[in-house]
Amino acid sequence: MQPSPSEGNPYNGLTRLEPTLPSASYWDEASYRQDLEAIWYRNWIFACREADLAEPLAFRRFRIGTQEIFVLRDETGTLRAFFNTCRHRGSQLCRQESGRLKARLITCPYHAWSYTLRGELARVPSKAMPEGFDKADYPLYPVALTIWRGFVFVNLVQTPEISTQTIFDPASGDLTNWPLEDLVSGHSFSKVMNCNWKIFWENFNECLHCPGIHKDLSKLVPIYGRGLMTRHDDPEWMHHADNDAPEFSGKLRPGAETWSRDGFAHGPVFSGLTDAEREAGQTYVTSMPSMFIVGHIDYVRVVRLVPLGPEHTELTAEWLFLPEAVAAPRSNIDNIIAFGTQVLEEDAAICETNQLGLRARPHQAGVLMPEEYELSRFHNWVKEQHAAIDA
Amino acid sequence: MQPSPSEGNPYNGLTRLEPTLPSASYWDEASYRQDLEAIWYRNWIFACREADLAEPLAFRRFRIGTQEIFVLRDETGTLRAFFNTCRHRGSQLCRQESGRLKARLITCPYHAWSYTLRGELARVPSKAMPEGFDKADYPLYPVALTIWRGFVFVNLVQTPEISTQTIFDPASGDLTNWPLEDLVSGHSFSKVMNCNWKIFWENFNECLHCPGIHKDLSKLVPIYGRGLMTRHDDPEWMHHADNDAPEFSGKLRPGAETWSRDGFAHGPVFSGLTDAEREAGQTYVTSMPSMFIVGHIDYVRVVRLVPLGPEHTELTAEWLFLPEAVAAPRSNIDNIIAFGTQVLEEDAAICETNQLGLRARPHQAGVLMPEEYELSRFHNWVKEQHAAIDA
Amino acid sequence: MQPSPSEGNPYNGLTRLEPTLPSASYWDEASYRQDLEAIWYRNWIFACREADLAEPLAFRRFRIGTQEIFVLRDETGTLRAFFNTCRHRGSQLCRQESGRLKARLITCPYHAWSYTLRGELARVPSKAMPEGFDKADYPLYPVALTIWRGFVFVNLVQTPEISTQTIFDPASGDLTNWPLEDLVSGHSFSKVMNCNWKIFWENFNECLHCPGIHKDLSKLVPIYGRGLMTRHDDPEWMHHADNDAPEFSGKLRPGAETWSRDGFAHGPVFSGLTDAEREAGQTYVTSMPSMFIVGHIDYVRVVRLVPLGPEHTELTAEWLFLPEAVAAPRSNIDNIIAFGTQVLEEDAAICETNQLGLRARPHQAGVLMPEEYELSRFHNWVKEQHAAIDA
Repeated sequence: MQPSPSEGNPYNGLTRLEPTLPSASYWDEASYRQDLEAIWYRNWIFACREADLAEPLAFRRFRIGTQEIFVLRDETGTLRAFFNTCRHRGSQLCRQESGRLKARLITCPYHAWSYTLRGELARVPSKAMPEGFDKADYPLYPVALTIWRGFVFVNLVQTPEISTQTIFDPASGDLTNWPLEDLVSGHSFSKVMNCNWKIFWENFNECLHCPGIHKDLSKLVPIYGRGLMTRHDDPEWMHHADNDAPEFSGKLRPGAETWSRDGFAHGPVFSGLTDAEREAGQTYVTSMPSMFIVGHIDYVRVVRLVPLGPEHTELTAEWLFLPEAVAAPRSNIDNIIAFGTQVLEEDAAICETNQLGLRARPHQAGVLMPEEYELSRFHNWVKEQHAAIDA
Repeated sequence: MQPSPSEGNPYNGLTRLEPTLPSASYWDEASYRQDLEAIWYRNWIFACREADLAEPLAFRRFRIGTQEIFVLRDETGTLRAFFNTCRHRGSQLCRQESGRLKARLITCPYHAWSYTLRGELARVPSKAMPEGFDKADYPLYPVALTIWRGFVFVNLVQTPEISTQTIFDPASGDLTNWPLEDLVSGHSFSKVMNCNWKIFWENFNECLHCPGIHKDLSKLVPIYGRGLMTRHDDPEWMHHADNDAPEFSGKLRPGAETWSRDGFAHGPVFSGLTDAEREAGQTYVTSMPSMFIVGHIDYVRVVRLVPLGPEHTELTAEWLFLPEAVAAPRSNIDNIIAFGTQVLEEDAAICETNQLGLRARPHQAGVLMPEEYELSRFHNWVKEQHAAIDA
Repeated sequence: MQPSPSEGNPYNGLTRLEPTLPSASYWDEASYRQDLEAIWYRNWIFACREADLAEPLAFRRFRIGTQEIFVLRDETGTLRAFFNTCRHRGSQLCRQESGRLKARLITCPYHAWSYTLRGELARVPSKAMPEGFDKADYPLYPVALTIWRGFVFVNLVQTPEISTQTIFDPASGDLTNWPLEDLVSGHSFSKVMNCNWKIFWENFNECLHCPGIHKDLSKLVPIYGRGLMTRHDDPEWMHHADNDAPEFSGKLRPGAETWSRDGFAHGPVFSGLTDAEREAGQTYVTSMPSMFIVGHIDYVRVVRLVPLGPEHTELTAEWLFLPEAVAAPRSNIDNIIAFGTQVLEEDAAICETNQLGLRARPHQAGVLMPEEYELSRFHNWVKEQHAAIDA
């Protein structure tokens, strides 16, 4: 379920035989640590939306592998991120998941070292200082932060490259016409999946599993029912090049407007979308390794991953609507939420099933089918990320 | 509680001082992995009885260490075993513990790759195939399987030697006269023991613990109450060579017919047994490392081990009877089941106690007593198995 | 909260910049094993009080890291300690946490090997012995034991140096005038803290955290409310050298007699204390790494640590009183117990918070403030202990 590559590309499918990543990379403890090191600790990771930290002095904690950070909005309105660790004796600073600071200081709960909201060490409540101790040498450990249209990303690299290209997959869709900044949260859903984080992305990156796993979704998006994501995934696409029927075009089934149980939109439709965007049914934007956004005509869904261990990954989804939709009687958006939750539960369950087969000793690696061209791209990306730190 | 060696051997006991295996081999993670590699993944492992897969298309999943396999009965009635892993992306194939296939195909729940019941890749529901992809190259990973009198054994070695000698301990008893093929399950019992799998086998291999641990069993089998398994375990055996009293001969206490609470048989007695077999009280057959069978005059008990970790082992017991016994009112065989369950619970509890003492730093190894001659044989077998893969 | 160093030392504070131990030493599995090896398996470890084993044949089990030992009182009244492991096949010997032997023998529950209460192998219930087997070669593995004023300490080193200096921190306070031998237990409290054992000692070794963490204690002991443990922790101490007010002297707040909710003593006051000891409010004696004792005018509190893993430590506290106090109506000492429990709960909670921040990748180590001079001493001790086994 990855955005379609350029339409100029006549056929998307893989033509050569390619193996998957080695099986052990999905369950081995050392491989997991390498993934954290090479990928999770070196890329832009989605933390939350700006709106989640609306007020000055609001803060929120996040976990990336074994690392805990917090994001706060300072008194000037700027968002900042730091490791959640005091420079004194390494205590956790923010103990609550989220909240609002009571003062313009981050104060360690242990010995009350206090930091300005810019991370400078402001106060050390000792009667004297050791010789050579300079508060300027002990700011909070900063974490790079950038904002893209209301979405907050952090990066554990000290001075990472900041650009939309480094955050989003360049092959991603375009959500320019969606009013992302104005949306509010209608619902969120979270679960721990017993699978490696890469298994979820592989699942995301193909629709071969859709006919068997997502019966309802495959009715709503008929091309998914054919095991394809987009028109050019079909080696026979030329035979139907002008056929606008949903099973070829990728559009929703006739009469359907959005991803919901009944297919109807609920609440106001986004006004700025082009005809093509309205008809597309779904538009994906992907930020590896931590999230994707999918835009529909009346809402946006944000899906986030947090790796917890070689075989455990936290999945969180949030549904974003125009404020009017959320203010309206609840039954409307429940129709939407129930549909998306079902799809995610179906994906989570089959990801866990996939994980359970990967220990077989003769299974050194799997093999990719033509429709799994995005998995090939994903695997290459993983390999490049690992190679980059080995170099 | 091992079968008696040849009666021609005047005295069974160890005469020289021998240490046990090193303590760490019972709890160390690396030692455990070596046991899996050298022993569990290279020997015939008991899976189930043929009767558990009575109908064509019946299947059952099993675990051996970290490896999951399944056994199925194909449409021709042949039993086959495979790793429970799809060749495509490594998904688990059978998700249920057991059941019956709905078609003559094993279909992966993820992307619907389908395999014939012989394991051949039959169907790949992709629109095209990559260049050079040949379905013949992607059969299920086969697991060797053999059947001995209705008992199904599997072997993760690709082409293992198949012979009764490679399955059963040649010093085992002889169950030729028991109608094993005709028996049906009357009860099963399972528990996870907090001990290394070898600790259970050591317990099985001596009766020095019987007087203290198995009070009721020691009354039923008086020689056990003397800490011995068989007549020739006694260094003074010659003084009682002609004494047929149970405490010397190994027979059940006077009046007892079988292993049960009241000592009476319940249900029909097996008709083909010799007088000696009837009088023996119990006849053991052992298949290292995964199971033993003990035959009585009216039933058979099958005990199976599955290693789950260095200090965790699953124990499963099943009681097999003639169909008439199981069809009769329940109270009869409950007398039998309760007795055997008590003995197994006693063994499991003391195995866990044994495990708890093995971490003491000065305890490099224990020491064997003369009655522990079968432990010596077991330890030598373990050492040979390890040596075989190092060679 | 460490006893004050010599009053001859004008200022206690650290003057040079010193780092803490490396962060990984608080959570890394290998570091934890090194701590066990170098520290816990080589020092005198507090087990229990003599009074806990009042009667001959009484026994008690203890854990030190992965090692399990037991202490018993033999028939002559002598206390002895052994690894809780049988020499035969390594079984655990004492299965109960504590109890009383039924005979003058320690009998293994597995095969009934029996040992005298001095640890000599007395009985092997086998029909014969292997050639060269000498019972004298198989005594229980002894554990060194020494008693200090009713407190039992054990040492896993075979022949450790025994002296008060090797058990107690020489900078510790002096409890000579406390009738330690006569006290009885009024209450005990135990909890597993999710932190490394060293984190608890660091917390113990400074009072910088007192104003923020121990509000009630800081009112009772006003100098703690200033973040100091003792008069000479203040770089400005000379300005108040003659000021006997509690915030400078370290005494309890005016009107308070002991550590209790209401500040009053409950039950009889110890008669042998000097005026200075009565006024001190609290007197600490420390035995690294396993315990400290704090003496008040009417009771004594004993706090014990058991490392369970890199990030798990068991904390146990026991309140000791004169027998009259415990015999009196309960409400009296509850006032004392509730106060001490609150302080320990506060310490445990902040130790867990400290632990949670130590994984941050940029946090290689923390930094010590002048008031943390006892942490510096503790860190040096840890480093010396590690160096001693590397040498």
